[in-house]
Amino acid sequence: MRGAVLYGSRDLRFEERETPKIIKPTDAIIRISATCVCGSDLWPYRGIQPVAEPMPMGHEYCGIVEEVGSAVRSVKPGQFVIGSFFASDNTCPNCQFGYQTSCQHREFVTTAQAPLLRVPLADGTLVATPDVPSNDMVPSLLALSDVMGTGWFAADAANVTRGKTVVVIGDGAVGLLGVLSAKQMGAERIIAMSRHESRQKLAREFGATDIVTERGDEGVERIEQLTNGIGADSVLECVGTQQSMMQAIQSTRRGGYVGYVGVPHGVELNGEQLFFAHVHLHGGPAPVRRYLPDLIKLVWDRKINPGKVFDMTLPLDQVAQAYRAMDERRAIKTLLRP
Amino acid sequence: MRGAVLYGSRDLRFEERETPKIIKPTDAIIRISATCVCGSDLWPYRGIQPVAEPMPMGHEYCGIVEEVGSAVRSVKPGQFVIGSFFASDNTCPNCQFGYQTSCQHREFVTTAQAPLLRVPLADGTLVATPDVPSNDMVPSLLALSDVMGTGWFAADAANVTRGKTVVVIGDGAVGLLGVLSAKQMGAERIIAMSRHESRQKLAREFGATDIVTERGDEGVERIEQLTNGIGADSVLECVGTQQSMMQAIQSTRRGGYVGYVGVPHGVELNGEQLFFAHVHLHGGPAPVRRYLPDLIKLVWDRKINPGKVFDMTLPLDQVAQAYRAMDERRAIKTLLRP
Repeated sequence: MRGAVLYGSRDLRFEERETPKIIKPTDAIIRISATCVCGSDLWPYRGIQPVAEPMPMGHEYCGIVEEVGSAVRSVKPGQFVIGSFFASDNTCPNCQFGYQTSCQHREFVTTAQAPLLRVPLADGTLVATPDVPSNDMVPSLLALSDVMGTGWFAADAANVTRGKTVVVIGDGAVGLLGVLSAKQMGAERIIAMSRHESRQKLAREFGATDIVTERGDEGVERIEQLTNGIGADSVLECVGTQQSMMQAIQSTRRGGYVGYVGVPHGVELNGEQLFFAHVHLHGGPAPVRRYLPDLIKLVWDRKINPGKVFDMTLPLDQVAQAYRAMDERRAIKTLLRP
Repeated sequence: MRGAVLYGSRDLRFEERETPKIIKPTDAIIRISATCVCGSDLWPYRGIQPVAEPMPMGHEYCGIVEEVGSAVRSVKPGQFVIGSFFASDNTCPNCQFGYQTSCQHREFVTTAQAPLLRVPLADGTLVATPDVPSNDMVPSLLALSDVMGTGWFAADAANVTRGKTVVVIGDGAVGLLGVLSAKQMGAERIIAMSRHESRQKLAREFGATDIVTERGDEGVERIEQLTNGIGADSVLECVGTQQSMMQAIQSTRRGGYVGYVGVPHGVELNGEQLFFAHVHLHGGPAPVRRYLPDLIKLVWDRKINPGKVFDMTLPLDQVAQAYRAMDERRAIKTLLRP
């Protein structure tokens, strides 16, 4: 089979890779219905993370179970399934606490931009939909594999509840779905920080009540103005830079909550500054698996439509174009169909 | 009147100071029944914080209201009152959220090691006891002014509830009262990190079930052993150094809570490390005022006895000896009687 392989900075190839097969009795092989390019794929694509050797790519996936190992009990061939970017056993103490991305036996899924995928720990990782979905629902189900679960975790970690004032920093797919999540959780006011018209539009569609284009200190000041000098109850940090993290902390009211899901790149927090900010801080790699059953139900019942973040769809063999479009910010997120 | 004045490193004098008087209509003057030396007083005493000019000292206090300004409504002369180390109006948004130490009009109380004290924002700051207390209860009421409220906030910020496994880092008065607080909140297991026999003894009296003498990485390893490799549900950080903060984060289970109240000195948190630790982080200057009514009731009903942290009592004019005893760790905390 052919799949995506990253050779180095901006050198993404679609080429022959080994066809996956069952290795452990807990594995499943799934035939990919849709996969996509993640914002975090751009870190190595842009050369910010070094690429030591050619790397198969992709960690977002949904599809039909093709084959399962002898120990797999919870899914079977023919079912449509979604899994998280981290495979988890869903039974260890960390999983039991709801932090499946810190599973004691976690394995990062790294080869999903391909027609077939081996998923380890299938029982703990994959969740089946009630039936094989209609084609138009596939993008929204695919979004649950990472970006929607991550936006949801950001809102959950930021303690978003009914009536709250929420700020979302980052207008990538995760930030936009953070807006959708906050709306779903009952937030009264949702302020999206965005400078891009197409993203502002989608943010509004997802429930944003205000758009702020300023960043950094000016962004903090604007939030202060919009909240009568108090700050927001909940702030979702969906970028991962020093500037965005400090902006998040400084935009939060005393006793408020920062939920951060942007993978930190070079972030250092000053202890004293954090101490006097009086905020709650929680985040990390989103335990998507925890939310999958509920989010599948919301999509299945057509209550949410996170698939709208895919503003470009390409056949899988054009995966290199998908990276380029996202790198150049011509697309928010590109869906790939094998 | 005479009071404590710090001139420089280990140069604490008891000398003539101006007698306080009402300056604003919201002030109260109280006659100090008891005051004390705080662990944080030792930072400038030890020269770690520079002393630019002679500084009156003291921020923990309780006593009898002597006089009130014309706008004061909630306390009156003759009442026994306790206040926080930060005066607060208790009406601004930050106060309403329960973060009175971030009050928009807060004033740090800095002159309490003296027979008389001016307390700004008396209505928002002072809480009266049901009656004038008996003498033996005064130490416990004094503790509520800072250390007990701070230990309580640490436990509250660390989400301590019934049945939890709790680690307390720091065996100063705050850490010891963190143990008492965790016990009061129903923790099942309370692991106190301490190397000092007298403090270990008090920790056990307050409810510690285990004592760990190791620190740093060894301390983390010991907690891992004691919790089947999982980490603690709640960790109270009551020191404020880089080592103690990292020890706290690394001793916490995934999804667990760190409550930090040690004023950070030179602490820097690495964003990526924090991200993958998957912990909740909350802390800051303890909003003692929020807890005062409930804690006064617990002391008044003789359900808790936080005054036990005072293992030395001296007349106020021997305040220099009180600093020395704490500096040399001969005393956990020294109470001063004018």
